[in-house]
Amino acid sequence: MARYQVILAYDGAEFYGFQRQAGSSGQRTVQGVVEEALRRIGWQGQAILFAGRTDVGVHASGQVIAFDLDWSHSMEALLAALNAYLPTDVAAQAAQPVADDFHPRYDARARRYQYRLFCQPRRNPLRERYAWRVWPGVDGERMQRAATYLIGTHDFAAFGSPPRRKGITLRTVYQAQWSPELSDGWIFEVSANAFLFHMVRRMVGLLAAIGQGKQEPEDVVNYLQNPNGAKLRTLAPAHGLTLVEVIY
Amino acid sequence: MARYQVILAYDGAEFYGFQRQAGSSGQRTVQGVVEEALRRIGWQGQAILFAGRTDVGVHASGQVIAFDLDWSHSMEALLAALNAYLPTDVAAQAAQPVADDFHPRYDARARRYQYRLFCQPRRNPLRERYAWRVWPGVDGERMQRAATYLIGTHDFAAFGSPPRRKGITLRTVYQAQWSPELSDGWIFEVSANAFLFHMVRRMVGLLAAIGQGKQEPEDVVNYLQNPNGAKLRTLAPAHGLTLVEVIY
Repeated sequence: MARYQVILAYDGAEFYGFQRQAGSSGQRTVQGVVEEALRRIGWQGQAILFAGRTDVGVHASGQVIAFDLDWSHSMEALLAALNAYLPTDVAAQAAQPVADDFHPRYDARARRYQYRLFCQPRRNPLRERYAWRVWPGVDGERMQRAATYLIGTHDFAAFGSPPRRKGITLRTVYQAQWSPELSDGWIFEVSANAFLFHMVRRMVGLLAAIGQGKQEPEDVVNYLQNPNGAKLRTLAPAHGLTLVEVIY
Repeated sequence: MARYQVILAYDGAEFYGFQRQAGSSGQRTVQGVVEEALRRIGWQGQAILFAGRTDVGVHASGQVIAFDLDWSHSMEALLAALNAYLPTDVAAQAAQPVADDFHPRYDARARRYQYRLFCQPRRNPLRERYAWRVWPGVDGERMQRAATYLIGTHDFAAFGSPPRRKGITLRTVYQAQWSPELSDGWIFEVSANAFLFHMVRRMVGLLAAIGQGKQEPEDVVNYLQNPNGAKLRTLAPAHGLTLVEVIY
């Protein structure tokens, strides 16, 4: 028996989030289908460990899980077996043995997310599965100026809730960068030691409003300096968000 | 009453192709949902006209339809009304009045398609909705050398079937270009006066095999010079293909 770490990619559209629901709610979750696939290859645990509980509709290219398993074949064979039993919207991307006490959430030093948006006046079915449609269009330079204020260690209480009630809301953002994509889109790349619940989506909601000229770049500073004032209410939709990497 | 032309975008994954099926087969088609939306805004025709019958699973960003309608409001209002009644995987992108005898198929001078592929050893749910996963990887230069032989007027009988039995199989390809996408993907852009049934998917099936070193670039010439020899059997999957533009 040894502990293995596996990197998962999934399309979140048809999942009720990552985490298996208590009871037999019947909701389809990523954790649920992964545990089912693992049982097919002999896993007998109660629950897998995972790095981040992604919301309903959020995607991942770099979610990290860990589990204990008796496996005498290669890592290549483990990946092939898992991918054979996983549904088409989830796939294992890499696998390796890790220390017996490795924990994908507690051992993580940082997480990186991407948020995609594009600016078009009308619905676009080929873009909207993985990006938020924003109209009127945004000014990228304004969004970047605002994003830069997020970098550093701040009290992000206005941007989200801690995992435990009354938990600490201080987080350190390492990177907050907008880059152009195609002719009318933007990718926001953000990494931090950890994120509060809904933190990336509230950041993007605010930055997009700033990009549209509805708020000022300096408003970011107000929310950081008054963490216990009004909470940000605009939540960018889940389908634009992807958990890209967990760093150990 | 006037005739209107509308450009449609759709995600083909959940449709049984574009064309409404004869009888009440119950299959969900793009034509079916568009006609349903049109009826909600007062259309009373029997069937819309359209440029190209896309296969099950094929996407479009530039399908063209036409219909006769009593409409006294703006084109902007027509788009908004249609998009309000269309499901999320179809959207009208542009609308304009056209001549009473305009026909989106017979009046088209050329069609342009894109086919996406990417090279990874394992399934990737975030890429595979709109691209074909090919492994082992392909040599882009070989694929381009092979694609160049397709340009010009040739008998493409080995690449597909004409719309009518024993119909003409001569077609003129104007453009056949591979461009890199991301770190491990390729987009094939191909335009022609018209395409045979399955022609783009057979082209891509052959070009990918050439890119993998299983066939030679010069094999393309053999298929064009022996149109009544063996038909190409490798059909690249539908989900990598998008109808991008119809040119009048």
